[in-house]
Amino acid sequence: MTNTVNAVYKDGMHFAVDVNGHTIDIDASEQNGGKNIGPSPKVFMLLSLAGCTGFDIVSILKKMRVDFSDFSVRVDGDLTEGQPVIYDHASIHYSIKLAEEDRGKMERAVAMSKNKYCGVSRMFESFAKVDFEIHYL
Amino acid sequence: MTNTVNAVYKDGMHFAVDVNGHTIDIDASEQNGGKNIGPSPKVFMLLSLAGCTGFDIVSILKKMRVDFSDFSVRVDGDLTEGQPVIYDHASIHYSIKLAEEDRGKMERAVAMSKNKYCGVSRMFESFAKVDFEIHYL
Repeated sequence: MTNTVNAVYKDGMHFAVDVNGHTIDIDASEQNGGKNIGPSPKVFMLLSLAGCTGFDIVSILKKMRVDFSDFSVRVDGDLTEGQPVIYDHASIHYSIKLAEEDRGKMERAVAMSKNKYCGVSRMFESFAKVDFEIHYL
Repeated sequence: MTNTVNAVYKDGMHFAVDVNGHTIDIDASEQNGGKNIGPSPKVFMLLSLAGCTGFDIVSILKKMRVDFSDFSVRVDGDLTEGQPVIYDHASIHYSIKLAEEDRGKMERAVAMSKNKYCGVSRMFESFAKVDFEIHYL
C-alpha cells in the first residue's frame, strides 16, 4: 500500500497539505519568518508517534474490555544541534485513569504497541532512543 | 531544544493533538472503525517530510533570488506488509514553474535540502529508501 500527501505552496512559508482529503496548514513561526498559520513540519513526526501508539492503546484496551478515561499521550522530542537537525531522543508519556487492578493490562498494552504494532515507534528507533512511561491519574 | 505534542483522547479513535498551540485532529478512517474526523497518524510522517524539504526549497530559492510559481511537493510512501507497518520507500516529487535558465539552481536547492538541511529526510533514510524527483511545469 502507498500513502500520499501533497503540499501546495501558498506564500511566505505557508503550505496547504492535502492528507487523505483533509487539509493541514503548515507554516514557520513568526520568529522564523512565517505567520504561524500552522505548526512547522518537523514536529508532525512527534504527532505521528503519539497518534500511532495512542491508537494502539485504545484498540488494545477496548479489546481487553478495560474501562478508562482521561487518556492522553504526550511526546517530547529532543533535537540535535548542527545541520541537519534530527530527533535523537523521544519520550512517550501516557496518562490514563483506570482501576488499579487494570494497571497490568495497561502495561501489557504499552508493551504490545512498543514491540509489535506501532510502526512509527519502530521507525523512530532507527535514529533515536525511545522511552515509554505510564502515569496513572 | 525539545519539541512537544500532546494527544488528548476524545472518543472512538479520535484524538485532538496540541501541536505548538495548534489543534490537529487525528482519527481512523470509517473502514478502520473511526469517523474520519482527521487523517490517521502514520501519514503525518509524509507530511513532515514534504514540509521539511518544501521549506528548504522555498528558503534557498528566495536566497538565490529565483522567481518561481506553482510549487508543490508530493510524497508517496510505500508501506510494508506484516506487523509493525513501516515506510520502506518514500518518493519526493517537486513540481515547479520557473525560467529554464534557473533549473540548475532548483537542482542545487534540492541537493542542498537532501544533503545538508532536511532533518526529516535524514531520519527517513535510516529506515527507507528516499528518492528526489523534479517536475518542471
